Amino acid sequence: MSETRVHNLAVSLDGFATGEPQSLEAPFGHAGERLHEWFFPTATFRAMAGGEGDPAAAPDDAFASRWGDRIGAEIMGANKFGPPGWQDDPDWRGWWGPNPPFHTPTFVLTHRPRGPVEMEGGTTFHFLDASPADALAAARDAAGGLDVRIGGGPTVVRDFLAEGLVDHLHVVIVPILLGRGVRLWDGLEGLEKDYDIESTTTPSGVTHLTFDRR
Amino acid sequence: MSETRVHNLAVSLDGFATGEPQSLEAPFGHAGERLHEWFFPTATFRAMAGGEGDPAAAPDDAFASRWGDRIGAEIMGANKFGPPGWQDDPDWRGWWGPNPPFHTPTFVLTHRPRGPVEMEGGTTFHFLDASPADALAAARDAAGGLDVRIGGGPTVVRDFLAEGLVDHLHVVIVPILLGRGVRLWDGLEGLEKDYDIESTTTPSGVTHLTFDRR
Repeated sequence: MSETRVHNLAVSLDGFATGEPQSLEAPFGHAGERLHEWFFPTATFRAMAGGEGDPAAAPDDAFASRWGDRIGAEIMGANKFGPPGWQDDPDWRGWWGPNPPFHTPTFVLTHRPRGPVEMEGGTTFHFLDASPADALAAARDAAGGLDVRIGGGPTVVRDFLAEGLVDHLHVVIVPILLGRGVRLWDGLEGLEKDYDIESTTTPSGVTHLTFDRR
Repeated sequence: MSETRVHNLAVSLDGFATGEPQSLEAPFGHAGERLHEWFFPTATFRAMAGGEGDPAAAPDDAFASRWGDRIGAEIMGANKFGPPGWQDDPDWRGWWGPNPPFHTPTFVLTHRPRGPVEMEGGTTFHFLDASPADALAAARDAAGGLDVRIGGGPTVVRDFLAEGLVDHLHVVIVPILLGRGVRLWDGLEGLEKDYDIESTTTPSGVTHLTFDRR
C-alpha cells in the first residue's frame, strides 16, 4: 500500500515553518537557516555532499534518515522550487544544481506549468496545476508502488493535511520564536484525532514529533 | 534575589494556551481539560485534594512540583480569576473555593479593582489596575524576598515576557491542535536570545520546555 509521507519539516515554537520575506538570497526569509541547524550535522545531510555525519547527531539522524526509504515520487509547492517569480525565468531548474537530491519523479505544483525537465541522478521535474488529490494521483502513478513524499513548503503540507491525505508526518520543533512567516498548523483543529503521535527530544534540543495515521 | 517565574503553562502544538469561548461552565472554552490531562495524575495536583500521585506521572511531576518552591506572591490576569463578567458579581471569589491553592498574597490584574479579599490558608486576593512592571513591584513588596509567580492566563504571561520581566518560564507542549483560542507566543520574536532553553519529553507524550534567563 503506497503511503503519503512528510519528513524533516521544521517549525519554530510559534509554529512558523519558514520566515519572511522569501527571496533568491534568503530562501527562508528572516529565519535564515535557524530551523535547519539540527539537520546539518546529520549523516543524512552530510552524505549529500559525500561527507560523514557527526556522531553526536545520531539521535536526530535516526529521524532524518527515514526521508528517502521507499519513496517513489515527491510533490512540492512552487515556493519550495524557487524564489518568488521563478516562473518568469525559463531557465530556472530549482535550487539544487544539476543533480538534485530527490532522484525520483518530482511534481511541482504551480499555476503556471511548463514542460518536464529531466535532471541528472533520476530526478525529473513535472509541473502541475492541480488539486492535492489530483497531484497525489499523478505522483502515485509515477511512484511505481512506492510511497509519495510531500516535500513542502508548509502551505502545501497544510493543504494535504487538511484534506486528510497524509499517512505519516514528521515535524521537528525548534525552540526559537520567529514571530512571523508561514504557519504550518493553521486550520487543522482536531488533527490529532486521526493519528498516533509520539514525541522525542534529542540532545540537540529539538523535539521530533511523528504522526502515524490510525 | 527575587525571581519572576511561570510554571505549568500548557499550550497546544499550534500555540493556544486556552480555547474559546471562555465561560463559567467552560473555563477553557472548547479546549476543555485537554491541555491539563498530563497534570491530573501528578502528585502535585493530587495533593491539592489530599490524594497521592500516580507513579507513572513522576517525570511530569518533577516539573509540576516546582511551581510552589520559594514563591511569595502570585500575579494573575482577570481571565484566570473568573469567567467573563465576574467583575459584576461582588461575591465572586475565584474558582477555587474557600481555601485556594496559592497560600500567598495573590494580585489580580483588572481594570475594575475592588478591595482585598482574605481567604483561608494564607491566600489574600488584591485587585490592581496596573502595568506589568508596577504589578510586579507590588507583588515583590508582598513576597518578602521570595519569588513571584506569574500565574496566567496566557495574555498576562505574554505581556510579562514581552516586557522582559520573566526569569524562568516552564511551558508544556501538548500534542493536540486547538485551532483557535488565546495564543501564547504572538509578538515574542527572538525571545530565545535571552534564555537557555531545555526540552524534555515524558512518557505521557508532552514536552516540557524550560527557559532560564542567561
